[in-house]
Amino acid sequence: MKLGIIGATGAVGKVFLDLLPKSKLNVSELRLTASERSIGKKIKYNNTDYIIQENSEDFYVGLDYVFSSASAEVSKKAAEKSKKHNAIMIDDSSEFRMNEDVPLVVPEINSESLKSHNGVVAIPNCTTTPLAMILDAVRSEYNLKRVIVDTYQAVSGTGNLAIKELLDQTKHYLDNGTISDKKNVYSHNIGLNLIPHVESPLDNLYTKEEMKMLYETRKILSDPELKISATCVRVPVIRCHSESINIEFDKPPNINQISKILNQYNGITVLDDIKNDLYPTPLFGEGKHDIFIGRLRNDISNENAINLWVVSDNLIKGAALNAIQILEVFEKIG
Amino acid sequence: MKLGIIGATGAVGKVFLDLLPKSKLNVSELRLTASERSIGKKIKYNNTDYIIQENSEDFYVGLDYVFSSASAEVSKKAAEKSKKHNAIMIDDSSEFRMNEDVPLVVPEINSESLKSHNGVVAIPNCTTTPLAMILDAVRSEYNLKRVIVDTYQAVSGTGNLAIKELLDQTKHYLDNGTISDKKNVYSHNIGLNLIPHVESPLDNLYTKEEMKMLYETRKILSDPELKISATCVRVPVIRCHSESINIEFDKPPNINQISKILNQYNGITVLDDIKNDLYPTPLFGEGKHDIFIGRLRNDISNENAINLWVVSDNLIKGAALNAIQILEVFEKIG
Repeated sequence: MKLGIIGATGAVGKVFLDLLPKSKLNVSELRLTASERSIGKKIKYNNTDYIIQENSEDFYVGLDYVFSSASAEVSKKAAEKSKKHNAIMIDDSSEFRMNEDVPLVVPEINSESLKSHNGVVAIPNCTTTPLAMILDAVRSEYNLKRVIVDTYQAVSGTGNLAIKELLDQTKHYLDNGTISDKKNVYSHNIGLNLIPHVESPLDNLYTKEEMKMLYETRKILSDPELKISATCVRVPVIRCHSESINIEFDKPPNINQISKILNQYNGITVLDDIKNDLYPTPLFGEGKHDIFIGRLRNDISNENAINLWVVSDNLIKGAALNAIQILEVFEKIG
Repeated sequence: MKLGIIGATGAVGKVFLDLLPKSKLNVSELRLTASERSIGKKIKYNNTDYIIQENSEDFYVGLDYVFSSASAEVSKKAAEKSKKHNAIMIDDSSEFRMNEDVPLVVPEINSESLKSHNGVVAIPNCTTTPLAMILDAVRSEYNLKRVIVDTYQAVSGTGNLAIKELLDQTKHYLDNGTISDKKNVYSHNIGLNLIPHVESPLDNLYTKEEMKMLYETRKILSDPELKISATCVRVPVIRCHSESINIEFDKPPNINQISKILNQYNGITVLDDIKNDLYPTPLFGEGKHDIFIGRLRNDISNENAINLWVVSDNLIKGAALNAIQILEVFEKIG
């Protein structure tokens, strides 16, 4: 497999390069590109130095696959070049996700949709993937009626600069006891604070991020009527998105059965024994491939509903690992 | 008014002493007590040094009112002594809140319940107060059907030692790039992490904190059938609790009307214009008396429901201010 990576120096790109040698992929040639300021820099991969190349036409010549973790704008241009040179692009941006001819894939759920594509395959937003996996697991026994989800999202979802902003602002407070007035990435301080605003707002007063959780989940689950209301909140955590999810079914759920269904699902581990302080936290989830579920319980306000808490490494299953798993499916189906 | 404060050196006690000179209360004598290790220490109040006294019988002699912000156990013993000496105790612990002869009061909602008591008045848990105020405001026009709430709770709700633990663990990470293995207050690290576990778990797998939000709100609103499902999460924030709240009514709500109703309610300010990055954050809410609402919108998953985000200073309206307002009502009604 000849593979190119766009955004190789970014938060997701680094994790992709970390996971690649441990994957089932046999990469015969690897090319890396990133934004202008990184061109010429060296990156160590499998004990070899790779130089960040320019994202020009040449980059794509002869590649089988391209993984792009960049802005929607960069991915749009990259897709044109990738298609021209007959590579298949796995895209982590929001640019193509809702296009009819673009499969939006979580391999545990809908890898069969990879059979038909137009040169671009999209991976979901990092908050969508764990939600969709959970809903896919439980819908095997219970019809989904309505989902309410509140997120607790790590700053690495925004990228390396956001991690720096969190750490700089936090350090400023620890050193001075005052709030830093320096902010470049977010519109409010994130150090020791919360920002209930992820991506730009829309006319219905939800944000783009919140609506992604609805539209992407509907597409992945092929359930266009599914009802989801999301509230997305940025929290002062470096890595791993957490979500508090309320799911309403059309009949009363058996919580033990749901726990079993979830734990048996590929890529999900249930860690749920609060009496022994057992439930996932972001620090626990960091670096792990599975998504982790705790706080599973019947909803006392509605006999047909449940509550649960999920933690998922936004850079791993939320991004890089999901892309690698898609490449593994491609290699398998030829 | 002769006033005693139990827990004067704690997170809430300090804020109480800060707010007291700015209140309508005319305090002719002030006595302070706290835990054993603080006895004999001096506290500056209104430019005068006060010495932390022992929490003995003598402390209560001649007092009109006692404010207690301590453990349930300390409050229980204090109530006995307070009653014996005919003082009225305003209690911030969970010990008495659900007792039938103890008013549980948010003055904006149910100050009339102060007319009958047995020497003890309780203030609600710091997550309950903002929720109850919001529900009281909107129920003037809409019948409440079901509430789902996820909290984002600051560590100062646990006390001064939890603030230290958050800062120490965060500093350790910033200095070393590794996770601190020192934790005394919480069962998991809270520095740059989340803990979906506030207070001990119950048989129904909710925690005590989560069930307080149900039972206390029902009592304050005199609405014993109200349906609330809460998930309580500790976040790496020093001060101000935030809550993402979904409220279902029995008819479709007019969101502009709800915004007006909320903003006109005593003690609530709506700050809601996400297109201009306007919504409350914990750092914004710190030190402020009002509770603040943003992200108000119709729920796309249910035409009878709304979503909103609230930030409330857990030490002010969530504790000290609410107690002072109760004392002000007592002074007014004599």
